[in-house]
Amino acid sequence: MSKLTDVPKRILIGRALRSDRLAETLLPKRVALPVFASDPLSSVAYAPGEVLLVLSIAGLSAYHFSPWIAAAVVVLMFTVVASYRQNVRAYPSGGGDYEVANTNLGPRAGLTVASALLVDYVLTVAVSISSGIENLGSAVPFIVEHKTLSAIAVILLLTLMNLRGVKESGTLFAIPTYVFVAGVFTMIAWGAFRGIVLGDEMHAPTADLEIKPEHQGLAGFALLFLLLRAFSSGCAALTGVEAISNGVPAFRKPKSRNAANTLALMGLLAVTMFCGIIGLAMATDVRMAENPAADLVRDGVPVGADYVQHPVISQVAEAVFGDGSVLFVLLAAATALVLFLAANTAYNGFPLLGSILAQDRYLPRQLHTRGDRLAFSNGIVLLAGAAILLVWVYGADSTRLIQLYIVGVFVSFTLSQTGMVRHWNRHLRTERDRAKRHRMMRSRAINAFGAFFTGVVLVVVLVTKFTHGAWVALLGMCIFFAVMSVIRRHYDRVAEEIAAPEGPSDDVVRPSRVHSVVLISKIHRPTLRALAYAKLMRSDTLEALSVNVDPEETRALREEWERRGIDVPLKVLDSPYREITRPVIEYVKSLRKESPRDAVSVIIPEYVVGHWYEHLLHNQSALRLKGRLLFTPGVMVTSVPYQLQSSEVAKRRARKQQEWNAPGAVRRGPAQDRPNDSSRST
Amino acid sequence: MSKLTDVPKRILIGRALRSDRLAETLLPKRVALPVFASDPLSSVAYAPGEVLLVLSIAGLSAYHFSPWIAAAVVVLMFTVVASYRQNVRAYPSGGGDYEVANTNLGPRAGLTVASALLVDYVLTVAVSISSGIENLGSAVPFIVEHKTLSAIAVILLLTLMNLRGVKESGTLFAIPTYVFVAGVFTMIAWGAFRGIVLGDEMHAPTADLEIKPEHQGLAGFALLFLLLRAFSSGCAALTGVEAISNGVPAFRKPKSRNAANTLALMGLLAVTMFCGIIGLAMATDVRMAENPAADLVRDGVPVGADYVQHPVISQVAEAVFGDGSVLFVLLAAATALVLFLAANTAYNGFPLLGSILAQDRYLPRQLHTRGDRLAFSNGIVLLAGAAILLVWVYGADSTRLIQLYIVGVFVSFTLSQTGMVRHWNRHLRTERDRAKRHRMMRSRAINAFGAFFTGVVLVVVLVTKFTHGAWVALLGMCIFFAVMSVIRRHYDRVAEEIAAPEGPSDDVVRPSRVHSVVLISKIHRPTLRALAYAKLMRSDTLEALSVNVDPEETRALREEWERRGIDVPLKVLDSPYREITRPVIEYVKSLRKESPRDAVSVIIPEYVVGHWYEHLLHNQSALRLKGRLLFTPGVMVTSVPYQLQSSEVAKRRARKQQEWNAPGAVRRGPAQDRPNDSSRST
Repeated sequence: MSKLTDVPKRILIGRALRSDRLAETLLPKRVALPVFASDPLSSVAYAPGEVLLVLSIAGLSAYHFSPWIAAAVVVLMFTVVASYRQNVRAYPSGGGDYEVANTNLGPRAGLTVASALLVDYVLTVAVSISSGIENLGSAVPFIVEHKTLSAIAVILLLTLMNLRGVKESGTLFAIPTYVFVAGVFTMIAWGAFRGIVLGDEMHAPTADLEIKPEHQGLAGFALLFLLLRAFSSGCAALTGVEAISNGVPAFRKPKSRNAANTLALMGLLAVTMFCGIIGLAMATDVRMAENPAADLVRDGVPVGADYVQHPVISQVAEAVFGDGSVLFVLLAAATALVLFLAANTAYNGFPLLGSILAQDRYLPRQLHTRGDRLAFSNGIVLLAGAAILLVWVYGADSTRLIQLYIVGVFVSFTLSQTGMVRHWNRHLRTERDRAKRHRMMRSRAINAFGAFFTGVVLVVVLVTKFTHGAWVALLGMCIFFAVMSVIRRHYDRVAEEIAAPEGPSDDVVRPSRVHSVVLISKIHRPTLRALAYAKLMRSDTLEALSVNVDPEETRALREEWERRGIDVPLKVLDSPYREITRPVIEYVKSLRKESPRDAVSVIIPEYVVGHWYEHLLHNQSALRLKGRLLFTPGVMVTSVPYQLQSSEVAKRRARKQQEWNAPGAVRRGPAQDRPNDSSRST
Repeated sequence: MSKLTDVPKRILIGRALRSDRLAETLLPKRVALPVFASDPLSSVAYAPGEVLLVLSIAGLSAYHFSPWIAAAVVVLMFTVVASYRQNVRAYPSGGGDYEVANTNLGPRAGLTVASALLVDYVLTVAVSISSGIENLGSAVPFIVEHKTLSAIAVILLLTLMNLRGVKESGTLFAIPTYVFVAGVFTMIAWGAFRGIVLGDEMHAPTADLEIKPEHQGLAGFALLFLLLRAFSSGCAALTGVEAISNGVPAFRKPKSRNAANTLALMGLLAVTMFCGIIGLAMATDVRMAENPAADLVRDGVPVGADYVQHPVISQVAEAVFGDGSVLFVLLAAATALVLFLAANTAYNGFPLLGSILAQDRYLPRQLHTRGDRLAFSNGIVLLAGAAILLVWVYGADSTRLIQLYIVGVFVSFTLSQTGMVRHWNRHLRTERDRAKRHRMMRSRAINAFGAFFTGVVLVVVLVTKFTHGAWVALLGMCIFFAVMSVIRRHYDRVAEEIAAPEGPSDDVVRPSRVHSVVLISKIHRPTLRALAYAKLMRSDTLEALSVNVDPEETRALREEWERRGIDVPLKVLDSPYREITRPVIEYVKSLRKESPRDAVSVIIPEYVVGHWYEHLLHNQSALRLKGRLLFTPGVMVTSVPYQLQSSEVAKRRARKQQEWNAPGAVRRGPAQDRPNDSSRST
């Protein structure tokens, strides 16, 4: 019945494009690493500092707990990486946490993960930009003096770039990421060499400060709570690890294996950098405080409100490379750039997740087109708006923003890993091959441990950070959850209302005849064309309809109608108030009343123009009439367009938009239909 | 050929409504006076003060010129009233200045008058509200302390009232206007009685102040210039006189005569009040200055920036009735109310003039529906926005705003009167009846004198006020003129482009066959209805078209299609990027390429919903597809609506809007088609 095998047409409509692009967009590992890792690697720019910052509450002496906290973060990182290596193997389609939770734990869990991820994307932008500004500010003081403004300016710049559709390439990500990684490793190595081999005394710029503890001599439960809070803050290093699991289709073959290895490499780099920076911070006596103005003391006097607390990574770089040295500036720039790139990944992830959610009817259906410009723009603007709001409210203070950040990440980690356990359980029920069963059980164990560990961390984060800002993130998640639930319910209700009844008989009375009415204002090309088309349609009756808003014009119309001998009867409706809509609607209703089983087809000539201001000058009556006619049952409304010369402009614009490529394609890999979740297919 | 005599349908579509309303809306003179006179009468609240204010520049001694200036204003008022009595007789249709100028002097003069009137409406709002606030402020100091804010609040209130469509009645105008007139006359009479009979010494609150002249001992040309400037300011009393000439159809029969007599009565009231207030101001030693802070001196010290200069009318009322007396407060309230009513008349006049201009294609055509809610709202919002801008820029200072006001008024006076002279000339050429010729020549003489006198005043106003703000009004007029010219030129160009060629042969290739395509996403009631309607239309070929954005759904669609045995072939287009628009457009183009002489009819099922947020959830793909299809030649687009339950809401709302009555109907009289200008009919 269908003509799917109609090859020439299939080529015409885009299949060709698809295979064209397949090869060029696949990423080798050396490019995939920076493309996906800018987000997780960049978090080592702020995570170590957060640990020291929280510890400082109990005074300088608490700093000696930092290696233990680093160790815990490393264990967690390995757990998460090991877990996601299982995800990547089980879901090579790049389903991501939403799909894993949705498929294995049901729609409520899926929606929870989706809400968490949406909040997370917003926070990725807010935190990364703020931290980037702080890093840049350690080299360029002007920027840190106008922190909020600078951060908002960068967000606006990124937004504009993304709205315009800058085409991304792997190189764009590769250079700053590799420079950043190389810079940090050089710093660690050179620092270790200077400290251990040369025996240099390296001093961070804050080394001579003292910390006034907010709570002196914490012990027992209070100390434990503080350590847990410091650990929670350190967990910021884990944000972005899940990115690779969304991007498996972008890898070269064997996709899953390459992705898993990239994940492992990324984890290794991240923990090394994280520990290296903490170690150097200890060696160079970096001093950080939660409230630097009051708690950092120089020669017995608090440093005061003017004091700018630079990030750990830049303090360490200053100690190791020397203030103002080329390497110091280079590292600061690379750090900022990587952080901005990390923010940019959210600009791609947010609309992509939106399109997946739209496919599942949690968001307006028109968003489901992947990489559609309009859907993309809406997502971008929403993301940027929310991020700007956060940056503004929190004064671009990355420390305060991070309090909000980690909740969402661990909600999706925990649910995703729990989902994976279910996934393996389900497969184990049917799998008979022993070797495979063994592998699955191993994977299940890893995921179970991952779920347990990340779950514990989630509880720790919630308990230690709730009042510090985590509630804001939870509130955001609840809002997303509620809105998406309402949308889904609406779609479900409509689907029920419009479900076609079974069987050939139908409660809807099928119309038997159709009465066509062509609206005429004057005789000109558009109306003549509409008349010609109306005649082609061979409806049961056909008449031309005009509304008398000006007796003079109506008279002229009648005369010309007769003079031209147009063989369609012309009916004129009176309109004492010079209205058009009301008389036409009333007339159509009277036709329907006369013969309720007939359908009425209203044919409206329309001008097609090129500029928005021309739209204001044309078709407004037609538009409003169409709007009203749609509410009249038994009516269909036909537009017969007449393209004015100026419409060429709009046509060219539309063609240009059609050729637009959504940014972020490099992370998504070639277009591929998302496999249906098993909940649907079973 | 037409069925205009089809009585039952004509009743259905509104003829009945028209005759219904005819009687109830006609105004007796006692109601017509306040309805039309609130605008001109209210101007005596600020005009006398403006005269004193300008004279004060030459010092207190210049005040003795004020009776002469008042006399000049009275002569001008009588001239203008006499002139407009001719207009009213010659154009009983309520054409107004625009029509008079357009008909007799050509479209450029008409457009100039229209621009002047549009600017004038904006200034009527700005000046009347500002002056109303100042009058209210003389009784309630809080208001004058927050002058700009209060004025903007009143404008917003009026705007909201007008947007919601408050139904006006004659009483609404009558009570405040009569209270105001009675109050002013009581004040004049009581003041004269106290001064002449009782010999009381009445002192205005500013009587003990001295005026420091800005230019001491002005003489010769400089003095003349100052007197002319004072006269120009006094001419503010004439604003609004032309209102009656727009409203002749609202009068009871004999319309023209009643209108002419009302005009005369209004002129008489206005000059009496104007002269009375100036006289009382002289008797009570009111002192006003252009820069009161510096130029008013109390005991040798300038009064300073905190000094609030109250309007003359309230100072006089304080002197005559006593500060804080009931009559004083009542008069202040009535004055403010009449001024607000005067502003409100602009809210009716602006959209009405807009509809007339739209009929002549100087404004978007959709505005030509008289009293149409949407057109009305756009006009209101534009008017309010411009007035708020002016009030804000000029700090709600009526004195500064009046500098802008009078230019527009006298542009339309002069052109209208010149037009009337041409009108009589034309009629005299054909008229043979001696008595009629005599009357016409008399009218022509009056109009000629009116044109000459108002022309001279226009020059005086331009010369004396140009740098004081008249240039702003001129700039506004130029902008309106340019925009309307561009719109007209656009319409003319389009009209030329779409003009139907003569003769049966046409360069446009008429399509020979029509190929129908029904867009299908799923099988449900809306698509089944669309299919049923499409079959009714009996096009040459018919097929159903679906876009494969989800293979699973497409498979399900195919199965159901076959299971239900739908006898329309189903074609599925592939869409690797999950787009809908592009594949459909490409397919339609390929159909057109295959057989260029055929037309393609694309039939789209549409959901009709009730709430704006539901619109966001439905039809967006359909809307965009329709938008793109309109640019494809040889295509017609049919919407087959399916009314969801929620659409009932929108239906009810639409019905309510249909029953909406435009405010201001009471001033316009029953609806009547505007006769065509003779430039068109000749």
